[in-house]
Amino acid sequence: MTSVADRTTDEQLTEALARPSDDEIAQLDAWWRANNYLTIGQIYLKANPLLRRALEPDDIKPRLLGHWGTSPGLSLIYAHVSRLIRRTGQEAIYLAGPGHGGPALVAAGYLEGTYSDIYPAVSQDTDGLLRLFRQFSSPGGIPSHVSVTTPGSIHEGGELGYVLVHAFGSVMDNPDLLTIAVVGDGEAETGPLEGSWKGISFINPTHDGAVLPILHLNDAKIAGPTVLGRKDPAEVRSLFEGHGYEVLEVGGDDLPGMHHRFAATLAEAWGKIRAIQRSARDGGWNGRRPHWPLIVLRSPKGWTGPDQVDGVQVTGTWRSHQVPLSGVRDNPEHLAILERWMRSYRPEELFDAAGAPVALVRGLAPDGHLRMSASPHANGGLLTRALDLPDFRDYAVEVKKPGGAHAESTRRLGELLRDVYRDNPDRFRLFCPDETNSNRLGAVFEASDRAFMERVTDADVAIGRDGRVMEVLSEHNCHGWLEGYNLTGRHGMFATYEAFAMVSASQTVQHGKWLQEAKRLPWRAKVPSLNVLLTSTAWRNDHNGFSHQGPGLIQVVLTQRGDVARVYLPPDANTLLSVADHCLRSRSYINLIVIDKQPQLQWLSIEEAAAHCAEGAGIWDWAGTDDGATDPDIVLACAGDIVTMETVAAAQILRERLPKLKVRVVNVVDLMTLPRPKDHPHGMSPTRFTELFTDRVDVVFAFHGYPGAIHQLVHGRPDVDRFRVRGFIEEGTTTTPFDMTVRNRASRYHLVMDAINNAARLPRGATELKAWCEQKLAEHETYVVEHLEDLPEIRNWTL
Amino acid sequence: MTSVADRTTDEQLTEALARPSDDEIAQLDAWWRANNYLTIGQIYLKANPLLRRALEPDDIKPRLLGHWGTSPGLSLIYAHVSRLIRRTGQEAIYLAGPGHGGPALVAAGYLEGTYSDIYPAVSQDTDGLLRLFRQFSSPGGIPSHVSVTTPGSIHEGGELGYVLVHAFGSVMDNPDLLTIAVVGDGEAETGPLEGSWKGISFINPTHDGAVLPILHLNDAKIAGPTVLGRKDPAEVRSLFEGHGYEVLEVGGDDLPGMHHRFAATLAEAWGKIRAIQRSARDGGWNGRRPHWPLIVLRSPKGWTGPDQVDGVQVTGTWRSHQVPLSGVRDNPEHLAILERWMRSYRPEELFDAAGAPVALVRGLAPDGHLRMSASPHANGGLLTRALDLPDFRDYAVEVKKPGGAHAESTRRLGELLRDVYRDNPDRFRLFCPDETNSNRLGAVFEASDRAFMERVTDADVAIGRDGRVMEVLSEHNCHGWLEGYNLTGRHGMFATYEAFAMVSASQTVQHGKWLQEAKRLPWRAKVPSLNVLLTSTAWRNDHNGFSHQGPGLIQVVLTQRGDVARVYLPPDANTLLSVADHCLRSRSYINLIVIDKQPQLQWLSIEEAAAHCAEGAGIWDWAGTDDGATDPDIVLACAGDIVTMETVAAAQILRERLPKLKVRVVNVVDLMTLPRPKDHPHGMSPTRFTELFTDRVDVVFAFHGYPGAIHQLVHGRPDVDRFRVRGFIEEGTTTTPFDMTVRNRASRYHLVMDAINNAARLPRGATELKAWCEQKLAEHETYVVEHLEDLPEIRNWTL
Repeated sequence: MTSVADRTTDEQLTEALARPSDDEIAQLDAWWRANNYLTIGQIYLKANPLLRRALEPDDIKPRLLGHWGTSPGLSLIYAHVSRLIRRTGQEAIYLAGPGHGGPALVAAGYLEGTYSDIYPAVSQDTDGLLRLFRQFSSPGGIPSHVSVTTPGSIHEGGELGYVLVHAFGSVMDNPDLLTIAVVGDGEAETGPLEGSWKGISFINPTHDGAVLPILHLNDAKIAGPTVLGRKDPAEVRSLFEGHGYEVLEVGGDDLPGMHHRFAATLAEAWGKIRAIQRSARDGGWNGRRPHWPLIVLRSPKGWTGPDQVDGVQVTGTWRSHQVPLSGVRDNPEHLAILERWMRSYRPEELFDAAGAPVALVRGLAPDGHLRMSASPHANGGLLTRALDLPDFRDYAVEVKKPGGAHAESTRRLGELLRDVYRDNPDRFRLFCPDETNSNRLGAVFEASDRAFMERVTDADVAIGRDGRVMEVLSEHNCHGWLEGYNLTGRHGMFATYEAFAMVSASQTVQHGKWLQEAKRLPWRAKVPSLNVLLTSTAWRNDHNGFSHQGPGLIQVVLTQRGDVARVYLPPDANTLLSVADHCLRSRSYINLIVIDKQPQLQWLSIEEAAAHCAEGAGIWDWAGTDDGATDPDIVLACAGDIVTMETVAAAQILRERLPKLKVRVVNVVDLMTLPRPKDHPHGMSPTRFTELFTDRVDVVFAFHGYPGAIHQLVHGRPDVDRFRVRGFIEEGTTTTPFDMTVRNRASRYHLVMDAINNAARLPRGATELKAWCEQKLAEHETYVVEHLEDLPEIRNWTL
Repeated sequence: MTSVADRTTDEQLTEALARPSDDEIAQLDAWWRANNYLTIGQIYLKANPLLRRALEPDDIKPRLLGHWGTSPGLSLIYAHVSRLIRRTGQEAIYLAGPGHGGPALVAAGYLEGTYSDIYPAVSQDTDGLLRLFRQFSSPGGIPSHVSVTTPGSIHEGGELGYVLVHAFGSVMDNPDLLTIAVVGDGEAETGPLEGSWKGISFINPTHDGAVLPILHLNDAKIAGPTVLGRKDPAEVRSLFEGHGYEVLEVGGDDLPGMHHRFAATLAEAWGKIRAIQRSARDGGWNGRRPHWPLIVLRSPKGWTGPDQVDGVQVTGTWRSHQVPLSGVRDNPEHLAILERWMRSYRPEELFDAAGAPVALVRGLAPDGHLRMSASPHANGGLLTRALDLPDFRDYAVEVKKPGGAHAESTRRLGELLRDVYRDNPDRFRLFCPDETNSNRLGAVFEASDRAFMERVTDADVAIGRDGRVMEVLSEHNCHGWLEGYNLTGRHGMFATYEAFAMVSASQTVQHGKWLQEAKRLPWRAKVPSLNVLLTSTAWRNDHNGFSHQGPGLIQVVLTQRGDVARVYLPPDANTLLSVADHCLRSRSYINLIVIDKQPQLQWLSIEEAAAHCAEGAGIWDWAGTDDGATDPDIVLACAGDIVTMETVAAAQILRERLPKLKVRVVNVVDLMTLPRPKDHPHGMSPTRFTELFTDRVDVVFAFHGYPGAIHQLVHGRPDVDRFRVRGFIEEGTTTTPFDMTVRNRASRYHLVMDAINNAARLPRGATELKAWCEQKLAEHETYVVEHLEDLPEIRNWTL
């Protein structure tokens, strides 16, 4: 619980904020004009940055890119929040949902001096201005939208929909932080965004910070009107009151009237937030979900831009979304409009002779790290403290011999996570769509309830105001909250169904892109990794049926670059514990961990597991019969818990029935050991690859995911034609766990037959064994067909 | 415009509906009891289906699966809608958002007789009852949730979030249809669902049918309470009024009171829908978006189930979500509770001596195709009429020689689609997140405006009440609407950004699973294919930057089975026209078409294009230098527009500078020709594969997507080690189009060097040519680095 200023101070500050002096208005307006000027400069100019002479066609960029429409609104808000920070000392960050208004946010960082600190070539002088303008959306430059390169941002302005999930994630366990989240009315149409307003139902005013959403309605998106922009304002108000907010509305285009009204509205919002937090933190909270303020800001799209062009209305319409004036180089009239437009901001008042922002403009910026563009919360690696982790060995399953124990592997992980919660009450959270118990992670509830700010009843279990386990039936919220939590420097895990992990696949992709780009920027400190745990897997959704059977997320993560993507397939509890420990310590990766939650055979002692995971892949001597031979007759490889069991079972059948066949069993925990080192940093050396897989013996590879993944991973290894991969081939239904392996041709019997079909040398008895396997499979078919008639116990599934 | 009954008739019907007679109540209640009984039977029983003797442990299934909690609510609604249909003749279908309540919907189809019609073994007698119970969630049986096997459904109850998008899609251009869409309060937490309430902002009461959403609040999901279930009811009302609905609330658990109240509420909703439609269709509409009714139904979770078990409250809590009584075989007390519970429905009144539903129960069902389980709208292939398609050759770009024309390929497709709109005003729609013009498909606006029911202003262009082009900034809505439109038998296309197609990737996966399963059911008629067009591609988002650069959806579609998945990469306008024509005629596939919207070189005349597309892949003699040699020195293969241009350019460089090298150029339009015929029905024969790629010569393959895709596709073809694939390797930024190919090592110069490095035979001059390529790439690097300094025109990108 963080202390907040006393009520009197807050109320005095709120009142002062609500009534800016004439000097303050002048400063706000100067900063805003400077920002708008720089925004337009980025879109249009490659020379003559301060219009110290008349604009000429050659001053104009050859290709005009960027988004003007949303920018003046974004910068107006930025200016006013900056003033708020200066007056109150409030820590704040700024997330731009309409991040395509990138130039406004870049300009803000530039005016605050942060941009030049980070990128010295973009200095606060005429040369720097030129570079600022030229780099924008240009080859070798920066993207047109808010991106990893933008100081102060934890939110890419590309794919829309995630500004509120990032915002809510950023303030969890961050009691002093206020995150300003601007939501555009275009983005507001997306499903993920609409599903994220409910974040306040999970935010605790005592130990969490606050999100101030500002819904910026400017009526239009790229090519037409928006639903919220064109709805009756009473409906808009009703909608957000329904979401639980106190709606504050402000709108217009008159100046300085809008400055006065927006300042008053922002002050009111801040005052309400402080009052909510003060009440909660002073013990005066009635326990009801606060009605957090939300601002609806209505201002014209492209505000202060050219009203009409060629007789057509531009400002206030979708025509100002991107570049409101086209063909400026060739159209003298457009060139003249641009010059008038830019001069309307009176740049001569805003920049000094050297080209630097004048003191009035610079003076709006808060000090040091309070500048939103310099906030360490938006460069969360700076604030990251390693987790206080227990020894994962303490949660081990005792495994005296391979297959000698049976356990729900994720239950042990749950116990580990419970103690991570206990020992890190300020920097670890688990995010899960309503399945923590189902995933056997329920031990965490011994350390923390679920967070919930709506009504709680006496009958509820493990749920309450102080809870920090995050359950909401939305993969988008879970994933996005964790991203926001990670990017502001804290640790976590997202656990979900394997098939439904595809719901948020695009978030996984986009977060990976962010992490990859961040690694190229020395000023971006590494952040905790995004840990994704898939525990209800394709192979064990036999009871739920085909729609629940899909290992697609592995395939998605495999498309990402080696500097961010990791995929782990621990075959049992002890390997899972070792992998989880590794992932919780790692930074700036996407760690995908796949293991089922059902009771399963256990293979390795904890020390064996740790050694196996350190290698990432290894020979399981005890399972094979090759006795260290350089070249066995066949290699049985496996990655994934179910297929590992089938592989060990196949090897056992071969040992018993074809003892002279030299069989090697290789288990792969870290999938990224398979590619060549030049394709992934985890890729094992050629020597090691040959040690495991030889360079000529056929390999029967049983894989948890789609077989094609292995084919692509081993590309470039010696003689890849010899890899025969069994995996999930989209054969699913409601059936038995074992039948899932039969339908997908990855059962122990299929693997034995594959081994016989591909072995380098066949001992006597191979033909008979193949016939025996076919017989077994035929019996299985009969069993399945007859199943409905007698409905016996599901056959036990053992070695 | 469809006629609707006159006002007097409607009002009389509404009044009659609102006041069910005692006999009607008795019938509703009997049907509901029968349904609940069958639901519980499916979850628990494998014998003694009608409790004609005392329940014994051996009557109980060995594994208890299924979801009771939502089921009584689902069946209550079903009963009342059935009565409405019988009384009014309304055509209706029923989509169960909480489709995990599968047994209730299966039981409904069974009570209506449809189930036995389709699956004769599940007959309306004791044997059939036994099979009905045993098949449920059992190996060899049916999934636990509403699935493809459930008659009357177009909506899988697995992955949550899409019930409203399917519902709204089903009623577009379907003026006589009423779709009942039950939304569970768990599903209501997902982003896609929250983003789909706005469907009414796009539904025209004249030419579209109506969706009646019924938000079923039972307070809990699998393991805890729901946000909407625990919100202040005033907030819930406010939320949906904000979305634009007229909210009708009904709740409680008293009987027959709930029957009376629900009947009255449903009648009121129906009356309002008819009034809205009548007003619109009679010309009395004021043009404002109607306030369509929405019912909020509050009933206890697991209603009519065991109140408490082992002293713990079950009904009304999350504990009744799945199986409220566990361990029934071994716990005599639980067995007794189950028997009391099942007998509470008085099965002896509901089923006759043979085990068939009695006349009172059967009598609730509407006649024939009006039964919701038998509606042809839910088996849309029955209603599908082929599109009236123009000759795609009429839209051709004139290409006198390869590379002899330059055009925006998708613009021609837009012209074709315009005429498809014009000639099929009742059965074709384009769905696009606000980018129809940006995608160069704007010609469609000559035939139809965008649909929009919110306020339209004089300044708006191509938008209005009668519009049928669907633009909403939500991939989830676009994708899901099209699915609903397809599954009810109509045709369409979804056009979106390539990178952001991943937003709805999970919908693509789930729809593919639906189509695949449907093909196994003879009674499911084939439906129009889901056509997905990606037009702002990874390679040409040079200006937008890395977050917009990702060819992930190809990878996702490749994981689907060959019986549903198709991927087309037309290299120019004429091949695009031929591919589009093929896709618009096809049935029950997912057709993914990838081609950029920017001006590009054109290669093939329309007849050449048609021939090339018919083969799916072929040798481009004019581009190569092998003159029909059996084995050239190198094969340059390509799939995708940009990489095709680079490949042709590389071949040209080789022809000019290394004329003695025998180079073959192969272009692949239909990616699925690459796998073996046993892996995909489009897979080319071994002979044809060898004709194109030889069986020994190295292949340099330039691919639009991730290189690994080609490695997995050619698996099993002769000597796959010889394939060197260049493709998108997650190297992106804001740059020039050509630099995108350089960064990803797929530029013409890289391809030339690859050719030289891998050719079977090297003519004199090869070393010099490699050095020349390296020089070209070095110049390019310098050019990019210096670019910010001079910012010249972007270099033209030509052959």
